Amino acid sequence: VNGSPTVPGKFAYLGPRGTFSEAALRGLPVAADYELLPSPSVSAALDAVREAVVDGALVPMENSVEGSVSATLDELAAGEPLEIVDEIALPVRFSLLARPGMTLDDVRVVATHPHAHAQCRGWLRENLPAASVVPSLSTAAAAAGLVGEPPYTHDAAISARIAADHYGLEVLADAIGDNEEAWTRFVLVRKPGHTPVATGADKTTLVLFMRADHPGALLEILTEFAVRGVNLTRIESRPTKRALGDYCFSIDCEGHIADFRVGEALMGLHRICADVRFLGSYPRHDGREPLVRPGMTDKDFASAEEWLNALRGSGQ
Amino acid sequence: VNGSPTVPGKFAYLGPRGTFSEAALRGLPVAADYELLPSPSVSAALDAVREAVVDGALVPMENSVEGSVSATLDELAAGEPLEIVDEIALPVRFSLLARPGMTLDDVRVVATHPHAHAQCRGWLRENLPAASVVPSLSTAAAAAGLVGEPPYTHDAAISARIAADHYGLEVLADAIGDNEEAWTRFVLVRKPGHTPVATGADKTTLVLFMRADHPGALLEILTEFAVRGVNLTRIESRPTKRALGDYCFSIDCEGHIADFRVGEALMGLHRICADVRFLGSYPRHDGREPLVRPGMTDKDFASAEEWLNALRGSGQ
Amino acid sequence: VNGSPTVPGKFAYLGPRGTFSEAALRGLPVAADYELLPSPSVSAALDAVREAVVDGALVPMENSVEGSVSATLDELAAGEPLEIVDEIALPVRFSLLARPGMTLDDVRVVATHPHAHAQCRGWLRENLPAASVVPSLSTAAAAAGLVGEPPYTHDAAISARIAADHYGLEVLADAIGDNEEAWTRFVLVRKPGHTPVATGADKTTLVLFMRADHPGALLEILTEFAVRGVNLTRIESRPTKRALGDYCFSIDCEGHIADFRVGEALMGLHRICADVRFLGSYPRHDGREPLVRPGMTDKDFASAEEWLNALRGSGQ
Amino acid sequence: VNGSPTVPGKFAYLGPRGTFSEAALRGLPVAADYELLPSPSVSAALDAVREAVVDGALVPMENSVEGSVSATLDELAAGEPLEIVDEIALPVRFSLLARPGMTLDDVRVVATHPHAHAQCRGWLRENLPAASVVPSLSTAAAAAGLVGEPPYTHDAAISARIAADHYGLEVLADAIGDNEEAWTRFVLVRKPGHTPVATGADKTTLVLFMRADHPGALLEILTEFAVRGVNLTRIESRPTKRALGDYCFSIDCEGHIADFRVGEALMGLHRICADVRFLGSYPRHDGREPLVRPGMTDKDFASAEEWLNALRGSGQ
Repeated sequence: VNGSPTVPGKFAYLGPRGTFSEAALRGLPVAADYELLPSPSVSAALDAVREAVVDGALVPMENSVEGSVSATLDELAAGEPLEIVDEIALPVRFSLLARPGMTLDDVRVVATHPHAHAQCRGWLRENLPAASVVPSLSTAAAAAGLVGEPPYTHDAAISARIAADHYGLEVLADAIGDNEEAWTRFVLVRKPGHTPVATGADKTTLVLFMRADHPGALLEILTEFAVRGVNLTRIESRPTKRALGDYCFSIDCEGHIADFRVGEALMGLHRICADVRFLGSYPRHDGREPLVRPGMTDKDFASAEEWLNALRGSGQ
Repeated sequence: VNGSPTVPGKFAYLGPRGTFSEAALRGLPVAADYELLPSPSVSAALDAVREAVVDGALVPMENSVEGSVSATLDELAAGEPLEIVDEIALPVRFSLLARPGMTLDDVRVVATHPHAHAQCRGWLRENLPAASVVPSLSTAAAAAGLVGEPPYTHDAAISARIAADHYGLEVLADAIGDNEEAWTRFVLVRKPGHTPVATGADKTTLVLFMRADHPGALLEILTEFAVRGVNLTRIESRPTKRALGDYCFSIDCEGHIADFRVGEALMGLHRICADVRFLGSYPRHDGREPLVRPGMTDKDFASAEEWLNALRGSGQ
Repeated sequence: VNGSPTVPGKFAYLGPRGTFSEAALRGLPVAADYELLPSPSVSAALDAVREAVVDGALVPMENSVEGSVSATLDELAAGEPLEIVDEIALPVRFSLLARPGMTLDDVRVVATHPHAHAQCRGWLRENLPAASVVPSLSTAAAAAGLVGEPPYTHDAAISARIAADHYGLEVLADAIGDNEEAWTRFVLVRKPGHTPVATGADKTTLVLFMRADHPGALLEILTEFAVRGVNLTRIESRPTKRALGDYCFSIDCEGHIADFRVGEALMGLHRICADVRFLGSYPRHDGREPLVRPGMTDKDFASAEEWLNALRGSGQ
Repeated sequence: VNGSPTVPGKFAYLGPRGTFSEAALRGLPVAADYELLPSPSVSAALDAVREAVVDGALVPMENSVEGSVSATLDELAAGEPLEIVDEIALPVRFSLLARPGMTLDDVRVVATHPHAHAQCRGWLRENLPAASVVPSLSTAAAAAGLVGEPPYTHDAAISARIAADHYGLEVLADAIGDNEEAWTRFVLVRKPGHTPVATGADKTTLVLFMRADHPGALLEILTEFAVRGVNLTRIESRPTKRALGDYCFSIDCEGHIADFRVGEALMGLHRICADVRFLGSYPRHDGREPLVRPGMTDKDFASAEEWLNALRGSGQ
């Protein structure tokens, strides 16, 4: 029943319309059954989930060009608990968009988000050496600024291709990023109670709050994972909202909370951390199954428990 | 000779004028001897250093409200080598600024950067419940937008207090952030060749590139630090510019490259990493001396080396 | 019912009568209800337990002066499983014994076990500089050799004081060991099925067989203990009966198999070792309670499991 | 000049004549130039080296059947420093020896050391089921007891084959041990000053004294080795001569003190241990070269040092 409302549900995404976030959300099969609504910020999107205004929200998590993912990490780490239930990674492909009829020669001023600007410098230097670049709040905002009544502040926008459809623009150039292998990872966030079943190729996201600033705390934490054969795919120390120098760790690891090795690692972390915030177990976007070390499969855990129980029973 | 130019030197900072970056730079004693120039972006500021247009640049590193520090980390991790030579941490204090003569009652529209907005929600809800908030590219840009000729897009700006002086504005309210203990850490970056001498309370910044995505790589790295008693104060896995899943680690640790324990840890990292990028050793902003574990002082290292040499010599 | 036979049970000890092993066994309260029988060797004593000829055997484990404890370790590590159910540590106090009527001046030849000889050299040099020392198979055998019909091979024996009573000898000198703080640890071994209940001050003995000779295997093993806060009190790599270079580890750790932290460590070892042989959990002879690290008590383990179950349940 | 005396030098071995120790010493090429003298005990042999009565001593180290190797470990760990300069491993092959003219049918009583007895049980059960076995102080003593005038206490001896030549005995049966793959490792010990040069296939022996009984001390020690890619081949916790519960570790590791990775590990141990006793670097008896992890060769260490020096120099 979860996840399939009788009245059409709603998913929010980091807007405005035409962002990479919207493109990512449309790439998820589950999104086909939902109404998709832009949110002005990551905070707003996640609050809408917490307040049950929407059933979920798609927000950028890693390497976003639309703004800092710190916002996502920080919003998830505090407040009412939320869970990541899916992820998607999109190649970051920039296009140069303009009003119909414009040609490359007509472009004097280009608008885009500073991060996108940084990633298209090579192309701009070669193809529009004389153009000036003005910053916009997002790549979609740069595209949106091309429509409506003159005067226009800019002639073209560097943006996701999807924005061309939204705003009736034309694509002057495609794939203009300097680094064609850049990706952004987005996550779909819901209230607890929708943890997807384990697929064998899953990821788990956590926030670990330290008990005190004692040297070696990080080594202890990593050992809790390593000893159960759980590999990390991302780690960041993050200042907590309190004073500088007071840290937590934001972590992605391989595996699902239902896996024995992940479960035991979580219990180990729970014992040594001031707090462990579980932010979800969900299928990996790339479907890559983890290389589970010998002795760390569910079968190995079950067989070890059986062995221990037999030993303990022998003393009765 | 380095660091004390006969013709006045120049330092860049992340502009525009009136940002927290400018406030931070003015807080450094060394800045008094330099001309201070705003840069439009972190990239631009650091490029100016690389191209010797300026002698150094002050940019945000951690917990910035003006934009992502990912920009700083990524810019330092690639390209021509730069070194951090100093750091400063500033409390993030937001003020509500308006044109002279305005009162709180006159404020209908407030402009600010989305991150600042997120940090002042509580105050806005209580004191300006009816006002709408429009996003700006930076808090300083919001303040700058209050001056000049009408029509104005907004009536007040949430910004650093320093912007009031720059733009001839009045402070309607001070310390309006929800979290009065938030800090931002800024770093002063120069070309290699200006490493400050060790003070006993130093920090070292590194970027470590992994040889291959092998599980346990992070544990190995941390062990190189731990075994020499070097504590970390910040760690982030960062996707490299290539494909998702290819990571490096951005790290701050206690101590100075001239310290024996830091030097041996660096050599250990050099042996197991694909690349180690040294981003500087510099005095801690808080002057807090590290708690060096017994056996890890320079004296202990020297005495161990003397002992080994005697043993090796005995076989001759 | 176990351990309290209706017909008087029997305990073996490493003989002959008058050894430190007998003295140790008589120090155990449980021994009062059993008939005590000397065995010619550790192997013989343990075989008698395996063949149910006796109900248990007391053998030296650590720092014995009567012969190598390797015998005990190796016998326990192979063959039909046995379990240590108790331990006792005795100070190693040597006495010089002689037939009634003898004085120190009459002593020309002293017999004792070579290990005991090594530990009494100082006293002999000062008090019997002219005496020669002949080796015997055990200290008790040296004492036994003083009785019966002449001719005698020696005039006095260095031995445990208890041998004086057994063989009708007199004590010429007491506490003649050079190191008055030496101790020997003995263990009481039974068939599985008599594991004593946890007392809060227990020890667990294990033999760990390695899967293959891979570097780092030992570090992995120790990490399994450390991550659950289980301290080791003894470790020895032991060649297995097969080829040199093929090792197992003989280990004592703090805690009882019924303790959650010990149980989880055992399961972890079971997963990474070729074989784990449980040799018993039993009260420490010194009653010293372990310093259990924060987060590692049974209560901490139970609370972590409860927390995990709640998280896992939330996805249903 | 060291090691090649103008007057013939002397080496001691654990006697009496005819032991496996003598056989091992004769297997060392260097022994050809020395006079070989039996010593009554390990202590006596090592004392003779310390007192310069002999130039070196060959004593059993591991898995000896002639008596406990604890004696060797303990003697080397205390007193005036000595160094192991070579090692040799011999297969433990037992033979049944008797006076000329005896046949297997004549054997009623067999003498041997209890350890040898334990290793020949299978053969005795099958071939001499009716014979009784009496213990002797060493296998060589059992053989020696067969010569001289009657009455004889035994008819045959289980011993090393070499004893047949010494005592004019005949070999009734060969290779009668139950485990034909057993080996004993012997070491040649000298005064410091004779460390052999590194061969690329070396071993280093150490004794590490702990600062205090703190949990995790062993893990710290092993990490010092692991982080420099130095593998252990033997480890034993050993009670020190003081009180039970006060431990040191006796360790063999791969590599030579002249290797950079071993040297750095030694310095690390020196910093965290109360005392580190270096007991020698010497060629492995099996000539097996260590599998040195990438990054841990002498070349890697030298290159890391060069890199660090360049970085440090850049700040001048």
